[in-house]
Amino acid sequence: MIDDIRLDGSEPLQQQLYQQLAARIIDRRYPAGSRLPSSRQLALDMRISRNTVNAVYDQLKAEGFLQSRAGRGVFVHQNIHSGELQHGKRPLLQPEASASLPPIPELKGNRYDAAGDVSLAFQPGLPDLDAFPIRSWNRILHHQESRKILRGYDSTQGYPPLRRAIAQYLCSARGVRCQEHQVIITNGAQQALSLIMDVLLEPGDRVFSENPGYRGARYALASRGNPVTPVPLKEQVLDVDALPALGAAKLLFCTPTHQYPMGGILDISQRMALLRWAQGNQTWIIEDDYDSEFHFYNKPFVALQGMFENTPVLYVGSFSKTLLPALRVGYLVVPEPLVEHFVLAKQASGGESPLLIQATIAEFIETGHFTRHLRRMRQLYRDKWQHFQSRIAEELGGLVTPVAESAGMHVVLEGDFNDVELSSWLRTRGFGSTPLSSHFFGNGSRTGLIMGFASASEQEIEACINLLKQRLESGTTTG
Amino acid sequence: MIDDIRLDGSEPLQQQLYQQLAARIIDRRYPAGSRLPSSRQLALDMRISRNTVNAVYDQLKAEGFLQSRAGRGVFVHQNIHSGELQHGKRPLLQPEASASLPPIPELKGNRYDAAGDVSLAFQPGLPDLDAFPIRSWNRILHHQESRKILRGYDSTQGYPPLRRAIAQYLCSARGVRCQEHQVIITNGAQQALSLIMDVLLEPGDRVFSENPGYRGARYALASRGNPVTPVPLKEQVLDVDALPALGAAKLLFCTPTHQYPMGGILDISQRMALLRWAQGNQTWIIEDDYDSEFHFYNKPFVALQGMFENTPVLYVGSFSKTLLPALRVGYLVVPEPLVEHFVLAKQASGGESPLLIQATIAEFIETGHFTRHLRRMRQLYRDKWQHFQSRIAEELGGLVTPVAESAGMHVVLEGDFNDVELSSWLRTRGFGSTPLSSHFFGNGSRTGLIMGFASASEQEIEACINLLKQRLESGTTTG
Repeated sequence: MIDDIRLDGSEPLQQQLYQQLAARIIDRRYPAGSRLPSSRQLALDMRISRNTVNAVYDQLKAEGFLQSRAGRGVFVHQNIHSGELQHGKRPLLQPEASASLPPIPELKGNRYDAAGDVSLAFQPGLPDLDAFPIRSWNRILHHQESRKILRGYDSTQGYPPLRRAIAQYLCSARGVRCQEHQVIITNGAQQALSLIMDVLLEPGDRVFSENPGYRGARYALASRGNPVTPVPLKEQVLDVDALPALGAAKLLFCTPTHQYPMGGILDISQRMALLRWAQGNQTWIIEDDYDSEFHFYNKPFVALQGMFENTPVLYVGSFSKTLLPALRVGYLVVPEPLVEHFVLAKQASGGESPLLIQATIAEFIETGHFTRHLRRMRQLYRDKWQHFQSRIAEELGGLVTPVAESAGMHVVLEGDFNDVELSSWLRTRGFGSTPLSSHFFGNGSRTGLIMGFASASEQEIEACINLLKQRLESGTTTG
Repeated sequence: MIDDIRLDGSEPLQQQLYQQLAARIIDRRYPAGSRLPSSRQLALDMRISRNTVNAVYDQLKAEGFLQSRAGRGVFVHQNIHSGELQHGKRPLLQPEASASLPPIPELKGNRYDAAGDVSLAFQPGLPDLDAFPIRSWNRILHHQESRKILRGYDSTQGYPPLRRAIAQYLCSARGVRCQEHQVIITNGAQQALSLIMDVLLEPGDRVFSENPGYRGARYALASRGNPVTPVPLKEQVLDVDALPALGAAKLLFCTPTHQYPMGGILDISQRMALLRWAQGNQTWIIEDDYDSEFHFYNKPFVALQGMFENTPVLYVGSFSKTLLPALRVGYLVVPEPLVEHFVLAKQASGGESPLLIQATIAEFIETGHFTRHLRRMRQLYRDKWQHFQSRIAEELGGLVTPVAESAGMHVVLEGDFNDVELSSWLRTRGFGSTPLSSHFFGNGSRTGLIMGFASASEQEIEACINLLKQRLESGTTTG
């Protein structure tokens, strides 16, 4: 009966014996009720210790594979396949058939961003990873790494000192009006959107989104099956005057301070009109304040959220651009009456951030490193921006039109070419970018490349501009 | 006009001046079209530098608050309130009225676990935080902390070396059959449930869940509005024979290796019957393998997922109990045809784990520290378990009945008392626990305390047993 057992694998003998006996019982090579050799006999046959065999038999008995009958020996359990037989439509399990899986649902959508899987120069949203103050950061990490309080469970809403630091920062730097208890720590901005939908969206509720707009948000907003209505831009910003004709909406997603990707800034009268519309229309505004820290002339416009008390605004931000994408930490500021809703939603969906990372960010902010880092990055990105713009003007003058000149980390090079193809081609050369057309809904899109200059060195700027020049002059990718 | 401006705050003068002017324009104390003093005059009046005033005026002009008219001076922008007026239902924004918010939805559910916010001894699921090998862990953290590759964006599915390490570990330690590409890193087990629902649940699909069962799972499973049907237990395990009468289900949540909270183990014939039922019924099984690493006699039963190829099982696990809750890292193993669905769902909902944490866990596993740590913890928890059991027998003999003696980190003390009240009372004394009744659906629940002994020291065991003895003998909490 046990002739086909071979203990020649690399795992411990006991594990091999267990697995082979169990497999043979499951697939009925050893049928229910059949007798196994005694442990003494099996040990002799296999040339292993009797203790090993006894341990395996004990385990198999405990698990219901085997049963002892006093004085008669060890048997495959009588009831081993009874569960299968008693409802008995099919006589046997079909262990190898993939038909054994329930129906696989259709895929909804595509992986929209293979780019997200790597960090290439010019990838939009990627900060300069070399300029990150890793030594100061690690020093703070070392302060925090052994604290026992950072090992266990903590507040679903987020580590309180981090919420406090964020509230203070947002208040002084972005004009956000909030208390620490209105701040919810999220796993990047994407989770913030997901929580907003959990809390506020009912089936059928309409969602408005800028067109063109941030495609990650658009995919997320569409993921629950709610209708998403594009709102056009006028002169690189959300066309506030177009809103009244569009009817009711539960949510409006927008990027008022640097429109993504076109870079325009909603001015004060447009902001007032937008808030007025949202109040009258009972619409929640999602304000994605994704890179306003990097505004090179004047200060960035204060957040829509902070224009007055009790704005109907859900404010979304993250440390992906101001610190590092790999931290996966963002934040959401919600009006006081919604705080509990968001904590419950976060509790149900998971998605908390490791305490060590939260505590390190909190100390980085509290000790002034964050403000210093932002100041240095603002200068660095301004230099890169000026250099990139001047090289574009010099080399790509008739070929592309730069737009989004107010955005902090990217420029859009608009032009009449197949942007999807050009972006893929650049990727094969080691440069990230996204096609402008992919940020549009449906037809009528414009074409161009969104180039994230923040992550590019001077040499990379030079190399990429040369590649683009050759490619565009050769006319290979005309649209 | 500017008599009411006071620059006596702690912020920079420029910021104070900007904020006060902007606020007065927004609230119409300075009406549209009104003239401001020249920068020279304002600088003199306020006794600040003219450069400061010019910078603020420039900013306010850029943002649309002010406009210059050649040769005539600086004015509040004519169009400042035009957006509000043109749709004109209400004459004015109502900045201070909280009535300005859209309707607040009703709260769905309650915060089910204030306990999650702290780490108290005896809190179920909490490992022994003092026994964590923090020095080895930090050494590995220091290997990883400065790697540039851990700063940017990475695979949505999870850091590949971690997925590889988990696949190998699950294969050898838990008998899970999977390749690295079937592993999806999650933010703890809770996010795994959320992703499963995103991928597989359609409105109206039924979900089955053990009763009693893990309440965190039950809340999550109910969060999308799908009907959740309780499945009774028989002798501390899922009653597989009860399933056929319950009809169709898209998902069944279960804990086959250590039923939560009752601690029973599904034996082989029950496992075969369960899989057979799932295949025949086209139901996906969610196998939550939450603490099988801590099994004190024999080895833990191999996972349901690995009973044969292509089981209809979604395998859920986490490092919260085997390493630390604060890491917030779990994993999900899905059949190959569903991998892309899960990656898409994770991309849409966010919830990635910081790369530094993922890389540290990967190295901790690869270098053998994880296996050694588990071995040490298994011994430690077995000692605590024996000690706790014997102290219960000695002190609480007639007062409670211990169940779940096979679970790895908790014991249930069943008894006829108000368990919600007793658990709250214990919390005021600094001890965590959860009431058994809270893990039941609806009526017919049993009462008891779930005590997580893994986190309790010998002194804490002693103190807690004494408290329980006094309280139960006094009869204060009889149910």
